[in-house]
Amino acid sequence: MTEARVMLPPGSVIGILGGGQLARMLSVAASRLGYRTHVFDPAPAPPAGDVCFRVTTAEWDDLSALERFAGSVAVITFEFENIPPDTLAFLAARDAVRPCVRALQVSQDRLDEKAFLRDLGLVTAPFLPVNGPSDLAEALNGIKAPAILKTRRLGYDGKGQVRLAEGDDPRAACAAIGNAPAILEGFVDFSHEVSVIAARGLDGAVAAFDPGQNLHEGGILRQTTVPAQLSAPQRSDAVLIAARILNALDYVGVLGVELFVTPQGLVVNEIAPRVHNSGHWTQAGCAVDQFEQHIRAIAGLPLGDGNRHVDVEMENLIGGDIARLPEVLGERGTSVHLYGKAEVRPGRKMGHVNRIRPAR
Amino acid sequence: MTEARVMLPPGSVIGILGGGQLARMLSVAASRLGYRTHVFDPAPAPPAGDVCFRVTTAEWDDLSALERFAGSVAVITFEFENIPPDTLAFLAARDAVRPCVRALQVSQDRLDEKAFLRDLGLVTAPFLPVNGPSDLAEALNGIKAPAILKTRRLGYDGKGQVRLAEGDDPRAACAAIGNAPAILEGFVDFSHEVSVIAARGLDGAVAAFDPGQNLHEGGILRQTTVPAQLSAPQRSDAVLIAARILNALDYVGVLGVELFVTPQGLVVNEIAPRVHNSGHWTQAGCAVDQFEQHIRAIAGLPLGDGNRHVDVEMENLIGGDIARLPEVLGERGTSVHLYGKAEVRPGRKMGHVNRIRPAR
Repeated sequence: MTEARVMLPPGSVIGILGGGQLARMLSVAASRLGYRTHVFDPAPAPPAGDVCFRVTTAEWDDLSALERFAGSVAVITFEFENIPPDTLAFLAARDAVRPCVRALQVSQDRLDEKAFLRDLGLVTAPFLPVNGPSDLAEALNGIKAPAILKTRRLGYDGKGQVRLAEGDDPRAACAAIGNAPAILEGFVDFSHEVSVIAARGLDGAVAAFDPGQNLHEGGILRQTTVPAQLSAPQRSDAVLIAARILNALDYVGVLGVELFVTPQGLVVNEIAPRVHNSGHWTQAGCAVDQFEQHIRAIAGLPLGDGNRHVDVEMENLIGGDIARLPEVLGERGTSVHLYGKAEVRPGRKMGHVNRIRPAR
Repeated sequence: MTEARVMLPPGSVIGILGGGQLARMLSVAASRLGYRTHVFDPAPAPPAGDVCFRVTTAEWDDLSALERFAGSVAVITFEFENIPPDTLAFLAARDAVRPCVRALQVSQDRLDEKAFLRDLGLVTAPFLPVNGPSDLAEALNGIKAPAILKTRRLGYDGKGQVRLAEGDDPRAACAAIGNAPAILEGFVDFSHEVSVIAARGLDGAVAAFDPGQNLHEGGILRQTTVPAQLSAPQRSDAVLIAARILNALDYVGVLGVELFVTPQGLVVNEIAPRVHNSGHWTQAGCAVDQFEQHIRAIAGLPLGDGNRHVDVEMENLIGGDIARLPEVLGERGTSVHLYGKAEVRPGRKMGHVNRIRPAR
């Protein structure tokens, strides 16, 4: 078992599990700090492959490929939370995995995540476990419809979820999510959603970016705006919530926390143990962005200055939005980030733009 | 001969001659626009190799490697001006080479460059060609010592140059530069040096970044600060000079122009037909930096918004400066860019930092 040294020397190779756009931008950030990246992804020609030092194309259960990958890197991180547990255990026995295996375990299971947050004294939507139609019928006595039934594991961007209106058939609802182990969540009456992107260094130092305000469409993030509409106490609450989560997990790296803003205070929606789409604005608004902050943390470097010096609006380019590219390229104050995806599909994140305005 | 299409489609491969730090940062910028890069460099493991799609390690006269390289890319650009003319001619017969072969020719020869600038009506230091000691003796009648004798070709960062004081032996001076064809330049009495980084699109549109003020040490750029100390007329003169050069060359891409500021006006020191060290500050100060501006131009995209929204000081990390890295990483408002060079050598550019301050 090779524990990475406290401060990764320049030239070291950082392993990244998953080769999508987040890995692509992590890889670029790593290069700014003099590191190389080795990306592991089952899909050929992943977006990160254009800007990384090395790519391994292999399945998550290909132990000899995993062994070679682990042997070629100084530390391992990931760009998404749904890495198969066996893969993770295999790698964690060989290299330092950062943020940490525990963070992945918590965020891979919606029930565990909610329980973890509640045990930390944080407020979440009301929730109950559901293991079949009879469970669901009973849960609907406590959490009144309208409510939402979600699979415990996997699922993102609105997949693996079904909304329940009053009188809906529990059997049909469970069937709609494949009768998978699930969680029933009550709705939260919120005015808007914000997210905090926060980081914790190997030395335990914590830093948070200014919270951003999120706008979703069809379950997919459409836009993040900074500054968010938050009072000063709300803003500091948001940061304290993120810090509490980071410390509880003994976390190393960047974490995204989605929060609902309600008259009664902030409600934690979910956490992502990785760089997060709602933190892409930091590329345009800060000396050190979320990608570099993550690399700094997992490499044992001091966290960088994430203070925001301009207002930013981040807009995702989703599916056919990419047709607007020529127009977007000519806009004032706009930086474009494309992910190198050849095929345009509805709902697929093709890129994003950051629009800056002088800070108010 | 394959002429690149007017607007390079995303996913296209851009060829870059030279794989140093400029190619490294060009490659990252290309990825933001959805392009891949193929780097050609005789040296193994070039800095750009960490973040490019493909690397060819071959000599400049390896025609079969050049042929394969040319066949794999949609357009060719370069990160340095001293590409052997035969290499360039071979490639230009196969692909679009941008900025343009003419710009390289002009900047490869100090005498041609000065003559080109003078013919454009621009002011340069006084200069005369020198082809040996007797030429030099005669030239020193017109351009009085102190003066500087420079080889016409090659040489950078203070190499291939010798200073002449009054009474110095012409024979010794010529010997000091290997008796190469040379140019004698008079000194210019200037208060400070600025540079303009300007771009010209495939459509002929011209845009310039705010001029930066340069500080050299031992012939190597140490620091660039924006805004530069310039009056409004000087600032507009600087931009007009760059535009005149770009248009005269029918240039496509980013060009650096170094200017001496004198009480009588701006004097052109030299031009660089590529992204330039004195433009690195744009990474921190603009929505679109010089690297992306160059990629946009050569890819036929509209030029981006290079307006400066913060004040920036760029400092090069040269040789042993890299030992200050731990301290620099912790500085407020600072972004670090390392070039992934394993070996530290005196005078070697290892990286740079951009320090931002709110715009005045």
